[in-house]
Amino acid sequence: MSDILRLDGSSLSIADVYEVAYGGRKIEIAAPAWERVNAARRLIFELADRDVPVYGLNRGVGWNKDKTIEAVFFEQFNRNLIRSHSAGIAPYASEPEVRAVLLARLNTLLVGCSGADPSIVLRYAECLNRRVHPVLPLRGSVGAADITTLSHIGLAFIGEGEADYEGRRLPALEALSAAGLTPLTLGPRDGLAIVSSNAHAAGTGALVLHEIGELLELADIVYALSLEGLSGNVSPLEEGVHRVRPYPGQLRSVAVVRSALQDSDIWQHYNPESLQDPLSFRDACHIHGAAYDALGYTAEQLEIQLNGSDDNPCVLVDEGRIISCANFEAVSWTLGFEMLGSALHHVSRAACYRIIKLGTPSFTGLSRFLTPNEASSIGYCTAQKTATSLDAEIRHLSNPASADYIALAGEIEDHAANSPFVVAKTREILDRLRWIIGIEVLHAAQAVDLRNAASGKSVLGRGTRSIHAALRKQVPFLAEDRNISKDIETAYAMIKNGEMLEAAREAFATSL
Amino acid sequence: MSDILRLDGSSLSIADVYEVAYGGRKIEIAAPAWERVNAARRLIFELADRDVPVYGLNRGVGWNKDKTIEAVFFEQFNRNLIRSHSAGIAPYASEPEVRAVLLARLNTLLVGCSGADPSIVLRYAECLNRRVHPVLPLRGSVGAADITTLSHIGLAFIGEGEADYEGRRLPALEALSAAGLTPLTLGPRDGLAIVSSNAHAAGTGALVLHEIGELLELADIVYALSLEGLSGNVSPLEEGVHRVRPYPGQLRSVAVVRSALQDSDIWQHYNPESLQDPLSFRDACHIHGAAYDALGYTAEQLEIQLNGSDDNPCVLVDEGRIISCANFEAVSWTLGFEMLGSALHHVSRAACYRIIKLGTPSFTGLSRFLTPNEASSIGYCTAQKTATSLDAEIRHLSNPASADYIALAGEIEDHAANSPFVVAKTREILDRLRWIIGIEVLHAAQAVDLRNAASGKSVLGRGTRSIHAALRKQVPFLAEDRNISKDIETAYAMIKNGEMLEAAREAFATSL
Amino acid sequence: MSDILRLDGSSLSIADVYEVAYGGRKIEIAAPAWERVNAARRLIFELADRDVPVYGLNRGVGWNKDKTIEAVFFEQFNRNLIRSHSAGIAPYASEPEVRAVLLARLNTLLVGCSGADPSIVLRYAECLNRRVHPVLPLRGSVGAADITTLSHIGLAFIGEGEADYEGRRLPALEALSAAGLTPLTLGPRDGLAIVSSNAHAAGTGALVLHEIGELLELADIVYALSLEGLSGNVSPLEEGVHRVRPYPGQLRSVAVVRSALQDSDIWQHYNPESLQDPLSFRDACHIHGAAYDALGYTAEQLEIQLNGSDDNPCVLVDEGRIISCANFEAVSWTLGFEMLGSALHHVSRAACYRIIKLGTPSFTGLSRFLTPNEASSIGYCTAQKTATSLDAEIRHLSNPASADYIALAGEIEDHAANSPFVVAKTREILDRLRWIIGIEVLHAAQAVDLRNAASGKSVLGRGTRSIHAALRKQVPFLAEDRNISKDIETAYAMIKNGEMLEAAREAFATSL
Amino acid sequence: MSDILRLDGSSLSIADVYEVAYGGRKIEIAAPAWERVNAARRLIFELADRDVPVYGLNRGVGWNKDKTIEAVFFEQFNRNLIRSHSAGIAPYASEPEVRAVLLARLNTLLVGCSGADPSIVLRYAECLNRRVHPVLPLRGSVGAADITTLSHIGLAFIGEGEADYEGRRLPALEALSAAGLTPLTLGPRDGLAIVSSNAHAAGTGALVLHEIGELLELADIVYALSLEGLSGNVSPLEEGVHRVRPYPGQLRSVAVVRSALQDSDIWQHYNPESLQDPLSFRDACHIHGAAYDALGYTAEQLEIQLNGSDDNPCVLVDEGRIISCANFEAVSWTLGFEMLGSALHHVSRAACYRIIKLGTPSFTGLSRFLTPNEASSIGYCTAQKTATSLDAEIRHLSNPASADYIALAGEIEDHAANSPFVVAKTREILDRLRWIIGIEVLHAAQAVDLRNAASGKSVLGRGTRSIHAALRKQVPFLAEDRNISKDIETAYAMIKNGEMLEAAREAFATSL
Repeated sequence: MSDILRLDGSSLSIADVYEVAYGGRKIEIAAPAWERVNAARRLIFELADRDVPVYGLNRGVGWNKDKTIEAVFFEQFNRNLIRSHSAGIAPYASEPEVRAVLLARLNTLLVGCSGADPSIVLRYAECLNRRVHPVLPLRGSVGAADITTLSHIGLAFIGEGEADYEGRRLPALEALSAAGLTPLTLGPRDGLAIVSSNAHAAGTGALVLHEIGELLELADIVYALSLEGLSGNVSPLEEGVHRVRPYPGQLRSVAVVRSALQDSDIWQHYNPESLQDPLSFRDACHIHGAAYDALGYTAEQLEIQLNGSDDNPCVLVDEGRIISCANFEAVSWTLGFEMLGSALHHVSRAACYRIIKLGTPSFTGLSRFLTPNEASSIGYCTAQKTATSLDAEIRHLSNPASADYIALAGEIEDHAANSPFVVAKTREILDRLRWIIGIEVLHAAQAVDLRNAASGKSVLGRGTRSIHAALRKQVPFLAEDRNISKDIETAYAMIKNGEMLEAAREAFATSL
Repeated sequence: MSDILRLDGSSLSIADVYEVAYGGRKIEIAAPAWERVNAARRLIFELADRDVPVYGLNRGVGWNKDKTIEAVFFEQFNRNLIRSHSAGIAPYASEPEVRAVLLARLNTLLVGCSGADPSIVLRYAECLNRRVHPVLPLRGSVGAADITTLSHIGLAFIGEGEADYEGRRLPALEALSAAGLTPLTLGPRDGLAIVSSNAHAAGTGALVLHEIGELLELADIVYALSLEGLSGNVSPLEEGVHRVRPYPGQLRSVAVVRSALQDSDIWQHYNPESLQDPLSFRDACHIHGAAYDALGYTAEQLEIQLNGSDDNPCVLVDEGRIISCANFEAVSWTLGFEMLGSALHHVSRAACYRIIKLGTPSFTGLSRFLTPNEASSIGYCTAQKTATSLDAEIRHLSNPASADYIALAGEIEDHAANSPFVVAKTREILDRLRWIIGIEVLHAAQAVDLRNAASGKSVLGRGTRSIHAALRKQVPFLAEDRNISKDIETAYAMIKNGEMLEAAREAFATSL
Repeated sequence: MSDILRLDGSSLSIADVYEVAYGGRKIEIAAPAWERVNAARRLIFELADRDVPVYGLNRGVGWNKDKTIEAVFFEQFNRNLIRSHSAGIAPYASEPEVRAVLLARLNTLLVGCSGADPSIVLRYAECLNRRVHPVLPLRGSVGAADITTLSHIGLAFIGEGEADYEGRRLPALEALSAAGLTPLTLGPRDGLAIVSSNAHAAGTGALVLHEIGELLELADIVYALSLEGLSGNVSPLEEGVHRVRPYPGQLRSVAVVRSALQDSDIWQHYNPESLQDPLSFRDACHIHGAAYDALGYTAEQLEIQLNGSDDNPCVLVDEGRIISCANFEAVSWTLGFEMLGSALHHVSRAACYRIIKLGTPSFTGLSRFLTPNEASSIGYCTAQKTATSLDAEIRHLSNPASADYIALAGEIEDHAANSPFVVAKTREILDRLRWIIGIEVLHAAQAVDLRNAASGKSVLGRGTRSIHAALRKQVPFLAEDRNISKDIETAYAMIKNGEMLEAAREAFATSL
Repeated sequence: MSDILRLDGSSLSIADVYEVAYGGRKIEIAAPAWERVNAARRLIFELADRDVPVYGLNRGVGWNKDKTIEAVFFEQFNRNLIRSHSAGIAPYASEPEVRAVLLARLNTLLVGCSGADPSIVLRYAECLNRRVHPVLPLRGSVGAADITTLSHIGLAFIGEGEADYEGRRLPALEALSAAGLTPLTLGPRDGLAIVSSNAHAAGTGALVLHEIGELLELADIVYALSLEGLSGNVSPLEEGVHRVRPYPGQLRSVAVVRSALQDSDIWQHYNPESLQDPLSFRDACHIHGAAYDALGYTAEQLEIQLNGSDDNPCVLVDEGRIISCANFEAVSWTLGFEMLGSALHHVSRAACYRIIKLGTPSFTGLSRFLTPNEASSIGYCTAQKTATSLDAEIRHLSNPASADYIALAGEIEDHAANSPFVVAKTREILDRLRWIIGIEVLHAAQAVDLRNAASGKSVLGRGTRSIHAALRKQVPFLAEDRNISKDIETAYAMIKNGEMLEAAREAFATSL
C-alpha cells in the first residue's frame, strides 16, 4: 500500500480509494489512459472548429442548452459556470473524503470520454499527490450529477474559493502557490468536465463501503464473543447447514465467526439439550450474511461507476463523435446503498436483541443486567436504552430517499437519485452501528468475565480472546456502578479507530 | 413448456415457477432427489430410536422446545401443531399463487434436509399434478418461516380445512377424495416439515419477479413509443455511450429499446440542435437498467432459496446428524425485494414525467394535453393526476418493512423479515406500475397520431408499431372528450393479461 | 337518528355523516342555505353577462385557464369537462362511502360560494334521498381537489356512466329514470362545481374517523379485560394520577376503562407488592389517550372542511364578486389523518405486547400460550405472529404520503395533499387494528377463563363481562388445539359489525 | 422579559422556556409550589417509615422493582442509580438547551407529585440562576422517560461528571464550587426524581416549537416578497375567501402576509386576466396555515406536559398516597411533533416550487434563472438544486420514528415514544427549512430588483420592503456570476440569528 497506485480508468477498487484517501498513497496516470485524455481533447477542438453544436462546449448547459457560446467567451463562460454552480453548503468534507472525490473523478476522466484539457486532468493528480485539498461542501447536490458541490473543487483549481494545505484552510490561490501550482485557465468544455460527474457521491460512497466491510467483520467477532458470553449453542455454526443454503455472505460470516471461535471451549460444552438459542444468536451469520451480500452488490455496482465514464456529453474518440447521453445517472448503485442501509438495520436490531438477552438471567444464567452484585449494583440496565434508541435512529435512516426529487430547470431535469444524501445517510447508519456494536462488546465481555468468575476460567476463541483483551486494557470489568457513558465512548472509539479489529486480525494472522 | 418439469432440488428457476403456476405445467421428482428424501427419513427414525433430542421431532417447537414429545403422541402432536399454527387470515392466495407455493416447498424438500415422510413430499407433487389447491391465507406470517400460513396447506393434507378443486372451494376431505387422494397421517417431524419453510413468500415472490421482468420489457417498448411521440433525440440510445459505463441492466434496456425502434423514422430526423431531452426521456435506459439490475440481484438471491434447504433442524444425511440451524432466515433475498421496490419507484416517476411532458406543447410541439382540438376538447389533462396519484402510492409502498418485527414466544423469536408482506407490497407496486405504463402508452399513441396528422405519416419502429396497433384495436384515437377511465382500464388490462407485450414480442420474432 | 337531517352548510358533524351514510338517514336543505345557493347563481349570470373573466365559467380550468369559453359552448364545455376529468380507477366506493361523499359535497355547496345551478345542488339531495348512488372510483385523485373521481358523479348526473340503485349497478340513465329523475343539463360553472371539491376525501374521511372513535372505545374495554386476564395492577387507573397530567384523551380513556371495570374483583385484589406491570398494560390509557387526542384534532379540522367552502373560484355574494382562491387545499386536515395513523400504530403495538404478555407464564402465572393443557396442546402460540405481522403492516401504512406529489399541468398544479390516499391508508390501518384487537380479546378471554378455572370464579367488570359473554357465544373456550384462524375471523367480524361494542354499551346503559 | 419568572408548576409557556433558555431570564419558585414540594417530601418519609413498598424508594427501579432497598443504603442506591443510568452519548446539548431542560424539569417538580428532597428541587433553580450547566448528552434516551440522559444532570448535582460554567467545561465539583454550591447528598427517591422525567425532550422541544413559530412568520413574509417578485395575483389573499373556510392557521398566515404587503403596489396592478398563479403561490397561506395549526396543537399538548407531573410513582399528598403510574408517557405530544414535521415538509416543497417558478421566464416575464444578463451570466440556476436537495432531506426526516422501539428490561418496558429523537429530527427539519427560505428570499429579492430595473421602481409592502432592504445590506444584487454558496450562507445566517424577522417586525411596529 505504500507504493504508487497507477490509475488506468478501468481497475480502481474500493480498497484503492480507501488507501489513497486515508493512507495518503500517491497515484500516477498510466500512459494509455493519458493518451486517451489527449485524443479526446483533440477531438473536442476539431468539433469546435467545425461548429458542431455540443452541450457545454459551444452551447450552454442544463436549461441553457439552447444558448450559443462563442469561442472568445469560452474562458468567461467556463469561469462563470464554475462560479454560478458553486452552491453547495455546509457541512464540509474531511480531507480523506476530498481525496476520495478527487480520485473518483480523476479515474473516470481517464476513461477518455470527457474531452477536458489535459491540464485539468493533471490537476486532480497534482492535488492528490501534493495534498492540496479543495474545500468541498457536502450538501446541495441532487446527485445527477454532483455539479453543485464539485464546482467548489473547480473554484480552487482556478484560484478562487478555499483549500486545505498542510492542515490549514487557505484561500485557494495561496494553497496552490504553497504547493507549487498555478491557477488553471479553463477552455472549452472544461467547466462542465469539472462539475458534471458523480465523483462526490462515488468517492465518499467508496469510503463508506470499505468501512462497512470492516464493521461487518468486527460484528462477526463481537457476536462470537456474545455467544461465549451466553454460553450458546454452536450448532448453527456447523458448516454443513450452510452448504445446503449457500448464500455467499452467509458463508463468509460463518467463516469469520468460526475463525474467531477457534480453540474456544464453547465447542466442548455443546449441550444438545439447549436446543435453540434466541434467533438473534442463532441467525447472526444469516443476518450478517445478508449485509455482506448487499455490500457485495453495492460494491460491484459502484466499481462500474468508478471505472466508467460519467461525462455528458460523451466523447467517443473511436467514432470521432461527441454524444449527448445520461451517463451521470447514478441510480443503479445508489439503490444498492439504500438496500445496504436496510441490511445494516437488521444487523443493528439483532445486536440490540443480543444485548438485551445478555442482560437477562433466564437466558444467561448470570445476574440481571450483568451486575457484579445484585444487592448493591444495578449494572448495565440503561445501556439497553442507548443501544435501542440508536437502533430507532437507524430504522429512521434506513428509509429510502433516492427518488424524492423535484423537476428542475424548466422541467428538463426531471430525474435524480439524491446519491450524496443516500451515501451520507448510509454513513450515519454505519456510525450508529459502531456505537451499538460497542455496547454489545461491553456486554459480551462482562458476561464472559462473570461466567468465568462463577464457573472457572474457560478458554475463549482465538479472535474473541483478542478483542476481549484489547477491550479490557481500556475498559475494566464493571465491578461496581459507574458512569456507563465513558465505557461506551471508549468502546466506540476503539471500533472507529480500528484498534479492535486490528487486535482480532493480528490474532488471526498468528493463528496461521 | 408443455413438457413435464423434473425437480431435483437444485435447478428450479423463477421462470419454471411461473410456468408451473400459471401454465399448469406438470412436475415429476428426479430419482436422486427422491433417494435423498428417503435417506433423510431413515435417519430421522434412527435418531428417534436413540432418543437424541431433536427440535420438532421429540421436542416441541419454538418456545416449547423444552417439552418432550413421546413417540405415542407423534400423530397427535403433529396434528395439533398443524391446527394451532393455522392462524393466517384473509385475503387468500389465487390458484397460481398456491401452485407456486407448493412447488417452492416441494423443491426445497428435495434438497433432502427435511426428514419428512416421503408421503408428505409426494403430496405436494400430487396436489400440483391433480390440481388440488389448498386454501392459503396470505396474511399472518412474519416470514421466519411462514408457519402461520403454510399450516393451512397442512390442514388440507390431513383432510381438514379447505381446498380448491376444479374451480370449486371444497372441504379438503372432499377435494382430496375427488382427486383420488386420501388424507395423510403425520408422523414424527412431519408437522414441522410442512410449516417450517419460506415457501409462501418464496413462491409468491418468484411470480412477482417474473412479472416484473415482463413489465420492465414492456416499459422499455412503451418508452420507445413515447420517444417517437416526443420526436425525441436518439443519441442517448447510441451503443457507444453505454459501452463506457457497462451496467448490465442498462445494456439490456438499450437493447430492447433499440429493437423496438428498429426501422423507425426517428433515427432519420436526428436533430443535432435538439441537444438534450428531459431526463425522463434521456435517462430511461439507465433508470430501467437500474431496475433490471435490482431484479437480477433479487432473482439470484431468491433462486438460492428455491434450491436450498429452508428446514430447521437440518438433516445432514452424509454426517448422520440433524442440526439446529437458522435456514428459515429469508432476510437476504427479502432485502432484494425492498431494493427492487425502490427501483420500480424510479421507473414509475420517470414514466409520470414523460406523461406530463407529452401533454406539454413546449416539449412536443403538439397540442396541450394532446387534445385533438384545443377549441372544443380538453384531452388528457386529468390522466396526469391518475398517474401521479398512483406514483404517490408506489412511493409509499416502497418504504421498507422487513425489519419491523417484534420479539415473540418468550423473546426467543427475536428476528424476522416480514417476507410475505414485502413480497405482497412489491406486487402492489408492480400492479400500480402497470396502470401508469398504461397511461403512458395512451399518451404516446395519441402523440404519435397527432404528429402524423400534423406532419405526414411517419414510420414507427418494429416494436413500437406493434404495440401502437394493438392498442388502437381496443382504444381508438381520442378525437373528442370521453370518459378517460375506460381507456385507462383497457390499457391496463392489455398489460396485465400480457396482450401488449405479446404483440411486441411477435414483432421482434418476425424481425429475425 | 331516524328523523330528517337538515343541512345548513355550517353544522354538519362527523356523526351526521356516518348516520346518513350507513343509517340511510334522509336529508333536507335549510331555507337560508337554499337562498344562498340561488343568490350565488344569480351573481354568476351577472358576471357572465358583464364578461368578467372567471375561471371555469368563461375561462378554461387548470392550465387551460387562458382559454375563453363562449356562452354558446357552456353546455358542451361543461360536458366535456366532466368527461375528460373522469379518469378515476378501481376500486370503487361502497354505497355508504358514495353517500358520505354526496353529503360532504352538498353541505359545502350550501355555504353558498359555488354559483352552481340550484338543480345541481338539488341533485345531491335527490340522489341521497332516493338512493341513487353514482359509481365512484376511489383512486386517481391527488387531492387538490378530487376532480379525477368526483367527475364520475357528474357523469351520472348527466346520464352517463353508471350508478347503483336498489342494489343493482345500472347505466346512470336507467338508474335516474328508475328513481324518477332526469339527466341534468349543465350550464356555466356547473362542471367545475361538481368536480372541484374535496368531498371524496372528506366524506370517506368522516366515516373513517367515526369508526376509529368506536374502535378506540372498544380497545379500552378489551384492554380492561386483558388487565383482568393478567390480574394486573389497577393503580395506573387511579383518577388522581391523571388529574395531575390532564390530557383530554387520556382522561376519556381512563373513564371508559373504569366504567368497563366497574364492579370487577380486580379492584379488590390490588396487590401493592405487584408494583409495576409491563408498560403495555400500565400505559394503555395514555397511549389510547394520545389516539383520542389525535382523533379530536383531526375531527375538528375535518369539520371545518365539511362546513366551509371548497369551491374555486369562490363566489362572495355579499361582495358581489367571484374570487380565484385555493380553498380546495386539504392539507391541514390531511395532516391530522397522518398523525392519527401513527397514533393508531402505538395502539396496535401496545395491543401486540399485551397479547405476547398474556401468553407468557412469568407475567400471568398461567400456562404458556394460554394452552388448556401444556402436555397435549400448544394453544395460542402462532396468533402472536398474526397480530405482529399486521402490526408491521400498520407500521408501514403509518408512513406519510401527503407531500409526495408531482407538479402537473404546465407546472401550475405544484401542490397537492394526496388526501384520498391518506384517508384510504388510514382506513387500512383501522381495519388491521380491528384484527389485532380481535386477537387480543381472544387472549384476554382465554386468560380470564384459565384463571377462573385455577383459582375460582372471579367477578368481571360490568363492561368486560359483557364482551366476554358476547365472545363466548361465538367462540368457545380453547379446550384443545383447533384452527385458530376461524376464531380470529369471528372476533374480527364481531368488532367490524359492531356487535362487540354494542354488547358493552348495553352493559353501560344498564349500569346507569 | 428581563424580570424574574415565577414558576408555579401550572403556567409555564413555551415562550417562557425560550426566554429562560436564550435570554438568561432568572426564575423563582412560587410559595404555594414550594409548599407542595415540602408536603410531598414529608409524605415520602411517612411511607418509608411505615415500610409501604414504593418503586424507587424502598424498591428498585425498572426490572429491579422486586428488589428491596434498605434505608441505610438509600444514599448508595441513589448514587448508583444516577451512575448506572448515565449512559447517554454525544452530541451534547447547547447551553440554552440545558437551561430549557433544567427549567422543564423544575416546573414539573413543582406540581408536587415527586417527593424529591427540596434541596434537589432547589438545585435546578440554583443552576439556572447561577448559570451552572451540567453537560447533557442528547442521545441515548428512548423517551419513556429520559432517564439515560437526565442522569448526567444528576451526576453534576452530586459533584460527578462535568458542567459548563462561565463558558468553560469543568469537572462538576469545580463548577459547583465556583458558583458557590456544594454537591448534593441523595436521599430516598431522589435518584428517580432526577432521572424519571421527560424534561430532556420537553425542554428541547419547547425551544424547537418557539423557533418554528418564528420561521413560519418569516416564511409568510418571504412568500409575500416572492409574490411581488412574480408580480402575482393577490386575489387568494382576499379576506373574504378565508372567512368561508376558517382554519385558524390559515387566517393567521393571511394576516401576516397582508401586513407584509401593506402599501405594496401589488394591490394596484391586480390583473384579473392573470387568473391563477401556480399553487405554490396561490395556496401558500393554506399551506403555512396547516403548519400553524399543527404547531398550535403540538404547543398545546406540550404545555400540558410542561405543567403536569411526569413523576412515577406519583405522590398525591391530598390522598396521602404514592401511586405507581405511567405519567412519564410522552406519546401524545410527541405525535404532534411528527405531524408538525410533515407540515413543515409541505412548507418546504411549496417554497422550492416558488423558487423554481421565480427562475422560469414563462411565469415571471423575467430572465431565465433571474440572471442579470442572459448572454454572459447564468444566474441562480444551481441554487434550485441546493434547495430541492434539502427538501429531499426534509422529506426523509419527516418519516415517523416514535413507535420504533424494542421491549427492554425483561420485556417490562414495552412502550416508548423516542421523544428526544423526534424532537431532534424536527429541529433538523427546522434548520433545513431555514436554508430553503434563505434561498427563496435571494430569488425573491433578485426578481423584484430585475422587475424594477425593467419596468420602473415599484413600491414594496411594508414588511417585504424591510426584509429586502435588510438582505441587500449583506447580499448585493447578483450583477454577474459569483460563488452562490456565500449568498446562501449569508441569507441563512440572517434567518437563524433572527435579523431578518427582526427587520420585518420593526417595520410592522412602525406601521402601527
